[in-house]
Amino acid sequence: MKSFRKELWFETPTRRAFINITGQVEEALRESRISEGLILVNAMHITASVFINDDENGLHQDYEAWLEQLAPHEPVGRYRHNRTGEDNGDAHLKRQVMGREVLVAVTNGKLDFGPWEQIFYGEFDGRRRKRVLVKIIGE
Amino acid sequence: MKSFRKELWFETPTRRAFINITGQVEEALRESRISEGLILVNAMHITASVFINDDENGLHQDYEAWLEQLAPHEPVGRYRHNRTGEDNGDAHLKRQVMGREVLVAVTNGKLDFGPWEQIFYGEFDGRRRKRVLVKIIGE
Amino acid sequence: MKSFRKELWFETPTRRAFINITGQVEEALRESRISEGLILVNAMHITASVFINDDENGLHQDYEAWLEQLAPHEPVGRYRHNRTGEDNGDAHLKRQVMGREVLVAVTNGKLDFGPWEQIFYGEFDGRRRKRVLVKIIGE
Repeated sequence: MKSFRKELWFETPTRRAFINITGQVEEALRESRISEGLILVNAMHITASVFINDDENGLHQDYEAWLEQLAPHEPVGRYRHNRTGEDNGDAHLKRQVMGREVLVAVTNGKLDFGPWEQIFYGEFDGRRRKRVLVKIIGE
Repeated sequence: MKSFRKELWFETPTRRAFINITGQVEEALRESRISEGLILVNAMHITASVFINDDENGLHQDYEAWLEQLAPHEPVGRYRHNRTGEDNGDAHLKRQVMGREVLVAVTNGKLDFGPWEQIFYGEFDGRRRKRVLVKIIGE
Repeated sequence: MKSFRKELWFETPTRRAFINITGQVEEALRESRISEGLILVNAMHITASVFINDDENGLHQDYEAWLEQLAPHEPVGRYRHNRTGEDNGDAHLKRQVMGREVLVAVTNGKLDFGPWEQIFYGEFDGRRRKRVLVKIIGE
């Protein structure tokens, strides 16, 4: 069994953002020289997500509006977490809806994807350096 | 390390449906002859889910009503994604709540499940052929 | 490839609770003597979650209030599932938002975590004995 580990770093200029990281994950897979196995991609921070969906800008605006409706950023005083001095209580909730991680099958050296699957980093409390972990196991 | 891959195909007659696929996943596990490891089951389409919960019809009606309340199908014009000509904006949101994938432990050649765990395919934009991927690694 | 399996048992005195289980998962990892691989931690019951987020009491109160808003426990008659004689319809919905499982990379014998990641058991229908499965594969 082989294993491979790589960190991807992000610093978004806005509080919230969706970034397509499929190419970076594919690059990590090539570096690993693993052709059969599983690839885990997870946010290492608890106010960010990694998820798989469509690379369509209108959909990303829909996600943004929907998450803001489910867990509004303002007023920041509505979240007890923000009494610690933070203003990111909403981000911890949004991240639960979108998820921490994805696990993708590796087959013949490639991400074993359906026709529209793309991997995204979802940032809900940006403007600082944050990491995604890529861990691959297989042969 | 051994690996095994199988696709399951679905075409639901309705837009939304929940289908118990536990038996088909167990059959794939038997075919793989893997007795210790992990089994990944994921939707290959981005308007569908794979999740684990109870095989109880009332609960499935509750999920249907709840998801429709969280992300209504109508009016389709409320989603920017639908400006692309689609009418499935809601399905991309519902799928995030229910999840893309499940990972199940394989122990002694069986799905290592609690008493009520069953695997479901959740369709939110059906009436066309769509796939689920089963990938097993282990020994 | 090595594999290791352990069950963790819980019985919360309240209907809902969040319990930090990071230490118990680390103990299982040490017992496994696996230093490179993947560790799956999943609820074996369908009204409970395993998730990763912050060990901050205010945040947990925010989760509690938010989940109660998204899927209220009362009136129990609002859920068809409760016509079976149960009163935990809401718990099956809450568990979908928070998730069934987490998958964590194992690197150099440790949980490969970002600075604030902690693993929680989320109970939404407690006051009875329930289990979490830890399954580790690797070398």
